[in-house]
Amino acid sequence: MEYGRNVAIDYEPRLGRIPIRHLSPRQPENLWPAKAYRGEVVPFEATAFREGHDELGVRLLITDPAGTERVHRMRPVAPGTDRWRADVQVDLEGTWTWRVRAFKDEWATWHHNAAIKIPAGLDVPLMLQIARGLLERAPQRAVVKQALAALDAGLTPAEVWRILDDPKLDEAIAIRPIASLTTDSEPTPLRVERQRAGVGSWYEFFPRSEGAKLARNGTWTSGTFRTAAKRLPAVAAMGFDVLYLPPIHPIGASGRKGPNNTLTVGPHDPGSPWAIGSAAGGHDAIHPDLGGVKDFTYFLAQAAKVGLEVAIDFALQASPDHPWVTEHPEWFTTLPDGSIAFAENPPKKYQDIYPINFDNDPEGIREEVLRLLRYWIGLGVKIFRVDNPHTKPLQFWEIVLHEINTEFPEVVFLAEAFTRPAMLHGLAQVGFQQSYTYFTWRNTKEELAEFFAGLAHETAAFLRPNLFVNTPDILTEFLQFGGPPAYRIRAALAATASPTWGVYAGYELFEDVARPGSEENIDNEKYEYKQRDWAGAEKEGRTLAPYLQRLNLIRAAHPALRQLRNLDVHWSDDESILVYTKYLAAPYTGTGKDDALIIVANVDPHSVRETLVHIDLTRIGLEPDARFIAHDLISGAQFDWGRDNYVRLDAFGEPVHILHVQAGKGS
Amino acid sequence: MEYGRNVAIDYEPRLGRIPIRHLSPRQPENLWPAKAYRGEVVPFEATAFREGHDELGVRLLITDPAGTERVHRMRPVAPGTDRWRADVQVDLEGTWTWRVRAFKDEWATWHHNAAIKIPAGLDVPLMLQIARGLLERAPQRAVVKQALAALDAGLTPAEVWRILDDPKLDEAIAIRPIASLTTDSEPTPLRVERQRAGVGSWYEFFPRSEGAKLARNGTWTSGTFRTAAKRLPAVAAMGFDVLYLPPIHPIGASGRKGPNNTLTVGPHDPGSPWAIGSAAGGHDAIHPDLGGVKDFTYFLAQAAKVGLEVAIDFALQASPDHPWVTEHPEWFTTLPDGSIAFAENPPKKYQDIYPINFDNDPEGIREEVLRLLRYWIGLGVKIFRVDNPHTKPLQFWEIVLHEINTEFPEVVFLAEAFTRPAMLHGLAQVGFQQSYTYFTWRNTKEELAEFFAGLAHETAAFLRPNLFVNTPDILTEFLQFGGPPAYRIRAALAATASPTWGVYAGYELFEDVARPGSEENIDNEKYEYKQRDWAGAEKEGRTLAPYLQRLNLIRAAHPALRQLRNLDVHWSDDESILVYTKYLAAPYTGTGKDDALIIVANVDPHSVRETLVHIDLTRIGLEPDARFIAHDLISGAQFDWGRDNYVRLDAFGEPVHILHVQAGKGS
Repeated sequence: MEYGRNVAIDYEPRLGRIPIRHLSPRQPENLWPAKAYRGEVVPFEATAFREGHDELGVRLLITDPAGTERVHRMRPVAPGTDRWRADVQVDLEGTWTWRVRAFKDEWATWHHNAAIKIPAGLDVPLMLQIARGLLERAPQRAVVKQALAALDAGLTPAEVWRILDDPKLDEAIAIRPIASLTTDSEPTPLRVERQRAGVGSWYEFFPRSEGAKLARNGTWTSGTFRTAAKRLPAVAAMGFDVLYLPPIHPIGASGRKGPNNTLTVGPHDPGSPWAIGSAAGGHDAIHPDLGGVKDFTYFLAQAAKVGLEVAIDFALQASPDHPWVTEHPEWFTTLPDGSIAFAENPPKKYQDIYPINFDNDPEGIREEVLRLLRYWIGLGVKIFRVDNPHTKPLQFWEIVLHEINTEFPEVVFLAEAFTRPAMLHGLAQVGFQQSYTYFTWRNTKEELAEFFAGLAHETAAFLRPNLFVNTPDILTEFLQFGGPPAYRIRAALAATASPTWGVYAGYELFEDVARPGSEENIDNEKYEYKQRDWAGAEKEGRTLAPYLQRLNLIRAAHPALRQLRNLDVHWSDDESILVYTKYLAAPYTGTGKDDALIIVANVDPHSVRETLVHIDLTRIGLEPDARFIAHDLISGAQFDWGRDNYVRLDAFGEPVHILHVQAGKGS
Repeated sequence: MEYGRNVAIDYEPRLGRIPIRHLSPRQPENLWPAKAYRGEVVPFEATAFREGHDELGVRLLITDPAGTERVHRMRPVAPGTDRWRADVQVDLEGTWTWRVRAFKDEWATWHHNAAIKIPAGLDVPLMLQIARGLLERAPQRAVVKQALAALDAGLTPAEVWRILDDPKLDEAIAIRPIASLTTDSEPTPLRVERQRAGVGSWYEFFPRSEGAKLARNGTWTSGTFRTAAKRLPAVAAMGFDVLYLPPIHPIGASGRKGPNNTLTVGPHDPGSPWAIGSAAGGHDAIHPDLGGVKDFTYFLAQAAKVGLEVAIDFALQASPDHPWVTEHPEWFTTLPDGSIAFAENPPKKYQDIYPINFDNDPEGIREEVLRLLRYWIGLGVKIFRVDNPHTKPLQFWEIVLHEINTEFPEVVFLAEAFTRPAMLHGLAQVGFQQSYTYFTWRNTKEELAEFFAGLAHETAAFLRPNLFVNTPDILTEFLQFGGPPAYRIRAALAATASPTWGVYAGYELFEDVARPGSEENIDNEKYEYKQRDWAGAEKEGRTLAPYLQRLNLIRAAHPALRQLRNLDVHWSDDESILVYTKYLAAPYTGTGKDDALIIVANVDPHSVRETLVHIDLTRIGLEPDARFIAHDLISGAQFDWGRDNYVRLDAFGEPVHILHVQAGKGS
């Protein structure tokens, strides 16, 4: 034979000696780092496999932003999948870097083979000879030394085997495993943002309504930042921690909309806050009715005092009266007839708004936007709720968010991305910290189960949902026709299924009358002032505020509810009883104890339902057939529960159980 | 306001002006080019979307290996998905390059808006003014000139609109669309291999059995390449086009296995062909009993004469008598006791085989393997069936296949990858042209539906199934206990669901007796000679050969069966009636006509089933409620069919319909 022919191989293989593939979390297409927020427990996974029967060892090597590398043992996810996983709670903000190391685990391979061969009397001297060689290479801990000594003690093979077949010996060696064929994956970044990027209870109000006064002659006096600040303690008392304000800028007069979005506008109609810009200024100005910069910063300070962070709206569009229109007509679209195009979605026309044209002067508009954001950040705003981001180029957001978050990593952007999935996901992927979602239109058990599972397990590497139950633009049919039970159901779902949820003012009062044929409140606050009788409602018990407070207290007390990826859907025998769990294991709760919640919701607001629910208890850290006390954090009731349980949920009473699992107390 | 602050933006966005993402076909993780074979109709897809309401134009720009670029219009896949698709039949071997171009389609945008506005009398002069500007930029074809003339003809808006609202005008402009914001995706390669890489009917026989003779004294004379060549016309007559031979090399004597894999071997037992190597030579030698190199090349030539291409086995392992063992002990594993490790999967031992150690001298073993492959390629072998590739490092195959296919792009490797999905897929991804799959263990309607759909739609960018119905290692329980109906069912499924299928000799004779407790034939040909009475079986009608011939004739006549990605699963009301279609549209069939087949199989070999089947006729190029003649290519029967149809399938008669759709002939 003719060996050793020289072959010039210049191909660089894509694979290492041991294939390590499909790292997770990663973004689809791996264009930007996957995301997490501080405190999140992130499941790190990879597919690692090799030829033959040897045992693999797999480790996660993860370096935090301070430069400290930690090593975590990865464990098999399920037989036959070659998938490995380690959970890590990311406790520092900034960019983490991780990679996966796989190797032939020499001791585990020996142990696997020895367990078959030695008891069967096969190759015993050889197997013990191999054991000795390996143990000599292992860290010389006591248990290893004992094992080595046993090999020389003249014992029978059965006696030696009893000493070598010891999980404690395996563990001691696994600390510094005897490895060969060691292969590392590419390093992969993970961007960890502040906790507020993923966790929060949001409340939205119009500052001009809070303290607005209707005179006897029918004219209004606008609320101001000073009057609106008086409402802050009540919002905080409900347990909210973010207050979101619709645009606070001067409102144009040209094309101004009247009540209920009509074209006939009275002299005192305030106009839509989203028609930004007048002679009083544009996106860097404050509406004179609300006050000045000092009033705004006073408002921010008052909010901070009661634990509320303020989010402002960032709506990139202009009223025809915006200073940009004369100073930068190139930022708009001029039609062949010389006019500037207003917004339209034929045949609908929005005469009070000029959309920005991002293509005539992309650098100019981008610099202006960066200037504006820096201005508000300078005043203390760290959260922006971005209006209709899907009507602006995705590449524009990619650049703007990259710039701002590089300079100000603490700034959070919420995308009002009510559009198709490709754009909704794209906005989250390029950097939006949070997204509005399709939640408001997911109502049935089946829809909600698929939706919640998707949020927790399919898109969590890049998309963080903010489950608003209503907005000034969205009063769903479910709320319009579901009565108070619908309001309880939707709030309980939003507050427990996602670490971030939100409520627009008036939800507490069950405001459920829509403009006919629309999905918006009648007499919409977008076009007029609204005075709400908070005190009267409280006095007469016509308010959901205590329920919202209860939900937020539960969220504050249960760290499992502040995680995104820990939701699992379970089963019921009823088509309207939705069951899911949120679970956080003891090492991550800060209390030393597991935190497990079972949410059982009757999602039909018109019925009483009785059925059985079935729970895979292994998903909440219990044995499959465990018994436990389920303590309802809503009603205070306690149930003796297990895998299969009877429930009765009366939509007209308490439609939702939020059950805290008190393990070990069951029968 | 303070405009124009200079911001130094050095961030290079990952997105273009119009996002173009998730290109398909690509391999998972995009590590190697996606694959196709000559003649395959490849669906090219991408997700392209933009902000706002303007109409997108999307094009596929594809360059063939000869350097010719062609442009194909991509069309929306389904509303709301932002997914675009164009099908292209790849008709040249080599590397193709493709990219996706997206742009604002100015005319389509105008047309969309005009269709709403002009009939409603909104902005008519402006809309016509815009139209003029666009038409002046369009290719000046007759229909465009007519439209321009109409704008000047003093017509009423309604009359002008009738002329402008013309699909012919749209089509004329779309040839060279009026585009803005034009964005191209990254170029993406597609590796197109020869048709045999994806399409073939395989037959396996042991050449030593073909012409083997049993003397009266009980000793055998081996068949030779000369005697085996006499069987080739019969194999070709059944319609097969690839003949696969188990290893043809010298067989070791040490540890040789006797009949039924026993350790007691008689002096005349021939041994397993997979125990390669003896004093007569190793992987580059031919077993002396079969003949010499000239006999082998004679065999290849005889095969070619009847249209059969020969595949040989490539099994990287050695008998203890292989020349490598003394010349290259470093290519094996030496144990601490000085012995060379034979193959084992404790407690099983394979004393006749030494596995290769790929890590002591990776370059040396790789060069030897390349030398061997080049040797056999030099003799005219262009197909290798690789034994147990999953017991060798995946990186080894990545490099070896890259080298061989760069030098010899026509060479086809079939992976006997009976292992877990990660490795099975990995082998296909690094370059194996074909793979054995889990087909033999997918028996129920539900299992088969999921399996076939997966092959066609999930893994087709890298994995081409070779659906062998049986092998010397696999005689499934379905075949052992299903009788002749099982043999018909499995052959019909394999021959129609995949463009490549295979049969191991003896299947025609319904050989269905297994070694007790195993999934292999008793008296397995791996360990002994086997004389089969082909003539007697034919004479007495005890053979499936005519059925196999019929299947291969149908495959030859129907180009839809030679495609991988065109399978769709449909529905029946019976749990054992599986329904799927294979469809190829007229532009790709070479006949000028659509080719549509409906396969309806009773996958329960023990029953007669009557039920309704339901077909989405749009998947085979028909209207949803079309009627047609369904011509059964097995039985010759004709049925008047539509969307919902009655079937009766008697497993003991003909368990499978292979229906050719003769459109337009129905009632």
